[in-house]
Amino acid sequence: MGRRLCFEALAGIPEVRPGDALAPMIVAALAANGSALGHDSIVVVAQKIVSKSEGRFAWLDEIVPSAKAQELADITGKDARLVELTLSESNRVLRAVPGVLIVRHRLGYVMANAGIDMSNVPDEVGRERALLLPLDPDASAAALREALRLATGQAVGVIVSDSFGRPWRNGVVNVALGSAGIPALIDRRGDTDRHGRTLQITQTAFADAVAAGAAVVMGEGDEGMPVVVASGFMPAAPETDCRALVRPIDTDLFQ
Amino acid sequence: MGRRLCFEALAGIPEVRPGDALAPMIVAALAANGSALGHDSIVVVAQKIVSKSEGRFAWLDEIVPSAKAQELADITGKDARLVELTLSESNRVLRAVPGVLIVRHRLGYVMANAGIDMSNVPDEVGRERALLLPLDPDASAAALREALRLATGQAVGVIVSDSFGRPWRNGVVNVALGSAGIPALIDRRGDTDRHGRTLQITQTAFADAVAAGAAVVMGEGDEGMPVVVASGFMPAAPETDCRALVRPIDTDLFQ
Repeated sequence: MGRRLCFEALAGIPEVRPGDALAPMIVAALAANGSALGHDSIVVVAQKIVSKSEGRFAWLDEIVPSAKAQELADITGKDARLVELTLSESNRVLRAVPGVLIVRHRLGYVMANAGIDMSNVPDEVGRERALLLPLDPDASAAALREALRLATGQAVGVIVSDSFGRPWRNGVVNVALGSAGIPALIDRRGDTDRHGRTLQITQTAFADAVAAGAAVVMGEGDEGMPVVVASGFMPAAPETDCRALVRPIDTDLFQ
Repeated sequence: MGRRLCFEALAGIPEVRPGDALAPMIVAALAANGSALGHDSIVVVAQKIVSKSEGRFAWLDEIVPSAKAQELADITGKDARLVELTLSESNRVLRAVPGVLIVRHRLGYVMANAGIDMSNVPDEVGRERALLLPLDPDASAAALREALRLATGQAVGVIVSDSFGRPWRNGVVNVALGSAGIPALIDRRGDTDRHGRTLQITQTAFADAVAAGAAVVMGEGDEGMPVVVASGFMPAAPETDCRALVRPIDTDLFQ
């Protein structure tokens, strides 16, 4: 028997505003798409709409850049207020060169600009604003999971995903910032292959793989569909949330 | 209209031996699984069976470690012959600490042990052997694409994939080492969102995203199914092979 996993991007998710509940939007879009959640469904949601629903906006005209932010803005050519926001969301600056500001986000992610987004964020009141990552993406995923369970009766998996650059490869891929109801990291340390040798691959980033695959149909920009339902395959492994995917900086093997 | 992408792992691919042609095995497995290739199919093949079919084995008893290999073996605790093989496949050693040898592969990949695999490689003749990456994974993908086109009449996409560790995240994900017939990298530099702002995400690693999603059903070890067919969605973008995914080391933004 083969194995199947299907990703379906839902058309018809409306623009999300602060305070909007995502679960009813998803349930309505599922119905409009003639689809439904099942026991093995994983709902992959773009970070952007989670942040919007949680009101994670910052108004740039309220931000007074620190001296350090101004210095990094001069180096990178970025808006000093955005740099100040980035610093406020980060523990460490890893790289600052023209056009590039890579930091370690307070939640451990190594990423450009602390994941702060200026593109495609409507600003109805004429003020410039930026969108930060959710305060706690695992908690966001758990809350959406519970809301979907109440609305549909299905205890599905949920992933909050975002696109990340990689150090040695061109192009972004999506990873999982937060999750609930799935084994975000599958740990097979100690397992052996059929010849009795210990497996070389022992930890699999399941949530990141699902987030990456979902992003293919999620798209971005004008054609983006920020909710994708994965269904058909759920590994038998203990549930872990996405904290398990963040490598402690002192165990980083690459530098 | 939503968008759908489905991954199907094919049961019944036999053990691959040097000189075996993969296309007939895939065509037979498709038929046995009641499946078929379509105009938007992408056949994702594990690097391991491509390397086996190309006979990319090295016999450890033929390898005489250099002084540098012996030194790195002492540091890492790895077999000096494997280290010698790793060095022969690499341009640069990025990190050597106990249990870890990260190199820049001759094709530009930054990875552990130059992707050389000792697990799950049967050794009928009683000699220890290791399995190297294909000589040119893009060429392997192109050859498989042509063989599948001749066998089925469908000009499908092909990806040769392997699992990679990441510097700042736990667990492996699959990436694309080689591809043919798809836009491995989608470049949207210059595009704007519906508010007229330039998109922040401008290059998408499509082949890596498909490889990552396929790996969810591909599995590994005893339960592994080394061929996965993705179907339902092919982006409209110019074809590029996987050389486009390797970031030149002098433009690495992270260190």
